[in-house]
Amino acid sequence: MIPPGHPRYRSLVTREMLAGCAKSGVVSWEGLTAHGRGEAFDYLLGEKTSESARLAEKIAAAMLLSARHPVISVNGNTAALAAPEIAALQKASGALVEVNLFHRTEARVQQIEDLLRSAGAEVFSGEAERLLPLDHDRAWCRREGMYSADVILVPLEDGDRCEALVGMGKTVIAIDLNPLSRTARKATLTIVDELTRALPEISRACRDMDPEEGARLIASLNNHYLLTEAIREITGRLNHALD
Amino acid sequence: MIPPGHPRYRSLVTREMLAGCAKSGVVSWEGLTAHGRGEAFDYLLGEKTSESARLAEKIAAAMLLSARHPVISVNGNTAALAAPEIAALQKASGALVEVNLFHRTEARVQQIEDLLRSAGAEVFSGEAERLLPLDHDRAWCRREGMYSADVILVPLEDGDRCEALVGMGKTVIAIDLNPLSRTARKATLTIVDELTRALPEISRACRDMDPEEGARLIASLNNHYLLTEAIREITGRLNHALD
Repeated sequence: MIPPGHPRYRSLVTREMLAGCAKSGVVSWEGLTAHGRGEAFDYLLGEKTSESARLAEKIAAAMLLSARHPVISVNGNTAALAAPEIAALQKASGALVEVNLFHRTEARVQQIEDLLRSAGAEVFSGEAERLLPLDHDRAWCRREGMYSADVILVPLEDGDRCEALVGMGKTVIAIDLNPLSRTARKATLTIVDELTRALPEISRACRDMDPEEGARLIASLNNHYLLTEAIREITGRLNHALD
Repeated sequence: MIPPGHPRYRSLVTREMLAGCAKSGVVSWEGLTAHGRGEAFDYLLGEKTSESARLAEKIAAAMLLSARHPVISVNGNTAALAAPEIAALQKASGALVEVNLFHRTEARVQQIEDLLRSAGAEVFSGEAERLLPLDHDRAWCRREGMYSADVILVPLEDGDRCEALVGMGKTVIAIDLNPLSRTARKATLTIVDELTRALPEISRACRDMDPEEGARLIASLNNHYLLTEAIREITGRLNHALD
């Protein structure tokens, strides 16, 4: 249906895949729009991992490795786009994988957990309770999972929840293509990069990490600098776009 | 379901409405992602009509009013987001309204035509033929409609088709939130503004237009300037985003 000669062929194929996941229930309809929003920012970033994003990915690896109880929070879009990459990061980092949804039904949670398991992840799926200080379904999580975590990786997050987790004293690592979003600004560490590029980079950094380098990386964290660099990437590209 | 206190409440409600339109078939699944892409650019533009966009909207009105055979091309997203605004612009400009879809089925064409008619538009719906030089379903249009048009307004267009229409010698007016897109760069005139803000502005300008002012506006058109100004809006906002 999509002509292979189309200049945005890859993006259109991903959209079609996500649309299929929306039909099956893994991705929410609103998740398709959220994906498009991310697509636009990735386009402005040149669809590649910047130097500052690569640094953020290394710091993320150091944080996950030195955590007492690290958790990777997975929603529908993350599972649809990157279930194998999540499984690989779990292996490399030792983090718990837990599903947390904005548009939450028990059936969707089950479906996404199954998808993650079939990609090789071990999913933490004890009984959920309404434990986070939020007025929607993202409040649901597990007492021994996200609620007890010291470090949480939240790919494709909403700002509310990011803020709530930081407010609970947790170290929050966000993967967000929009360097201006509330998530990006509220997180402890923000990786401004596309999910399927970012996750393998974090996994690789986990495997290569020397503990002393890890401590140095964590001490060096300046999230304002990382966000400023991401914005510079975008404006630099925009300034020359019509040349 | 969406908490009214959510900072992006309006955007989330629109997403939910579009998701409903996707379930009923008016909007394609891929259209939801395309909407998100536009959302991101509108966010970067501050979600308001810039001075240069307002100028573009006036020039668009002048072009539609002075055309021999103006046509407004409507796809699923445009109908879902702005059917009443399309009907109002048709009244103000005298343009023909014709449905043209990327993900084309006869049933979808019918559904979108019905939606436009129920919003008060007169829809041109003669028999379609494969008349545009394109390798996908957007090639389908009507001989007495789009094919014969001298001026075409294409909201939310794809770059391929915009280029094909310009190549056929037509004056193409695009409404596109991304000032870097192929559509934005290939169109004769690009309005970098959100659809439901742009259409009423064009209608208002049609109603207020003095023919002499119209001729002056058309003569003044410099699309490179309009795109440069849109980019300046975005980079200006980005440069101060973290202040």
